[in-house]
Amino acid sequence: MSDRRREPGQTSLADIAAEAGVSVSTVSRIANGDLGRASAATVEKVQRLIAERGYRPNPVGRSLRGGESRLVAMLAPNLDNPAMAAIAASTEAALRAAGYVMVLCDTHDRPDLQDEYLRAMRSRFAEGFILVSAVASAELEASVKRGEPIVFVNRRNPYGGGAFVGIDNRRAGADAADYLLDCGVRAPAVIHPAELSSTIRERVEGFIDRLRERRPGMAVRRAEGAGANHLDCGYAAALSLIAAGGWPDGVLCPSDLMAYGLFRAARERGGRIPDDCRPVGIDDNDLNAWIAPWLSSVKIPYRAFGERVVACLLALRAGTLDGEVLLGHELIRR
Amino acid sequence: MSDRRREPGQTSLADIAAEAGVSVSTVSRIANGDLGRASAATVEKVQRLIAERGYRPNPVGRSLRGGESRLVAMLAPNLDNPAMAAIAASTEAALRAAGYVMVLCDTHDRPDLQDEYLRAMRSRFAEGFILVSAVASAELEASVKRGEPIVFVNRRNPYGGGAFVGIDNRRAGADAADYLLDCGVRAPAVIHPAELSSTIRERVEGFIDRLRERRPGMAVRRAEGAGANHLDCGYAAALSLIAAGGWPDGVLCPSDLMAYGLFRAARERGGRIPDDCRPVGIDDNDLNAWIAPWLSSVKIPYRAFGERVVACLLALRAGTLDGEVLLGHELIRR
Repeated sequence: MSDRRREPGQTSLADIAAEAGVSVSTVSRIANGDLGRASAATVEKVQRLIAERGYRPNPVGRSLRGGESRLVAMLAPNLDNPAMAAIAASTEAALRAAGYVMVLCDTHDRPDLQDEYLRAMRSRFAEGFILVSAVASAELEASVKRGEPIVFVNRRNPYGGGAFVGIDNRRAGADAADYLLDCGVRAPAVIHPAELSSTIRERVEGFIDRLRERRPGMAVRRAEGAGANHLDCGYAAALSLIAAGGWPDGVLCPSDLMAYGLFRAARERGGRIPDDCRPVGIDDNDLNAWIAPWLSSVKIPYRAFGERVVACLLALRAGTLDGEVLLGHELIRR
Repeated sequence: MSDRRREPGQTSLADIAAEAGVSVSTVSRIANGDLGRASAATVEKVQRLIAERGYRPNPVGRSLRGGESRLVAMLAPNLDNPAMAAIAASTEAALRAAGYVMVLCDTHDRPDLQDEYLRAMRSRFAEGFILVSAVASAELEASVKRGEPIVFVNRRNPYGGGAFVGIDNRRAGADAADYLLDCGVRAPAVIHPAELSSTIRERVEGFIDRLRERRPGMAVRRAEGAGANHLDCGYAAALSLIAAGGWPDGVLCPSDLMAYGLFRAARERGGRIPDDCRPVGIDDNDLNAWIAPWLSSVKIPYRAFGERVVACLLALRAGTLDGEVLLGHELIRR
């Protein structure tokens, strides 16, 4: 995005207001796309002057002049998960382009912290909320009931309904199954966290259903692992899997971080990845192309999430949308 | 951190105020450690009631009841650099424990965006700023001149002075040189971005100085690379290095992301890492232990930054500190 600050000598709102013979707030509203309160003639005159004089609104600064906070809060479970970082970065850029300031709050996947930040941001007059991988919590339920503008990302609204941006997780799991079968894998397995979020459950179910659809009666080994994050879960689940029956020739890791955990377990236990055991991940973190050449993964277009999330939020605020945006995914073979 | 929300039935500020016969704001001040305005007898009575009744302040919520914003803005260059994510996560936790809300703003290493966010956050009454890898910019200079509470992280204040939390980058570079020499590397090289930040320059200088200290007259090949991020820079610099004189037997990558770029270049060009070319990084990102077993790296204790950054900020606000905190680093051998 280009620099939108007002440079010295550049036309100001006041200049245009004086020339058009209208108030600064009228120019401000029109510059920011709010055309409802001025006459058609005024809108036309102001828009012409804006174009002629090269006036560009200051997307961050303009929030401070109006009565609105122009502040949007993103609540995300884990700032140091590369997938979360990619969603946050793309959403921040899209919000900034739309004239909003994004505040990022780390909920650590905990209902109590999600509630604290919801309360704190509501009191700061946040104009919208973006909940990445939300969990059920009392304040969230209250927000949903009050109809506050919330876009859910990755995980759906635990109370049902609402705006959602994500992917078709069952299909992602099914595509991973197709990949392993097409690679000649004969006895695929799946590892997952001990506690299943809806997202992970859908991926695992989609995977197993597709395997059984193509290979009726196929046994699919499963192992779960506990841990504070998906790295630890993947590591623990991989150790549990091999302890129970040796290395499978292919395995679904329903997040890339779990695949990294499997990779470490394999290194420590002498398993060769991908020769002895072919993993398939879901996420395709940007770093994979650089340092995880052994990992094929279903790419979730996190970099494209931001624009869709912001479009949903603006539509919600305008009262025109209450639905789902499912973005396409693509299996990246390495 | 434990859940500090007020549970149903738990003593409130109002309960304690009623019992002590003082105002709610007096109890609030004492509960939050501000003892200056009440009599010694009142402080003692309120503190005793707080202890007896088990009152715990709500660290996020309490910011909203007082006149203070309790809002701290972190400006960081790149949310999707794992090192930045680790700093942000540890600082958010430390701020939350101290009763502050952290707002994270992505400056993309750009002076114009750094200025936009400084203006926006100042207007939102941010009580402090944490600038990670700051760049010189007009608003920053103005903030420094006004004496606003700013803690600089990783890169020092471009206008000199101020509070700083980081490591001794020259020593980190020197330690990397020792590591390569001790591994028997005979012709070490260094890659770096075309544009050198002070941090990277210090690492490179410390590396070269130590090599020449131990091996007087040693020639050290250097290659630089351009790119939007250190992954691209590292990749471009590695290609440039081998084009000019083949693979060196050891190479300093002054950030782990640059080492990831080197790794990709080596894979594409048939270089074996670390057998043909031993890299040493600086950062030791958390993911290295999982998926970059080929990378020894100087570990910067980003997880420990948060507490020191917050201690600096609180001291600055109390008018008691204007100095540097240099944390120790450690070379992790893999």
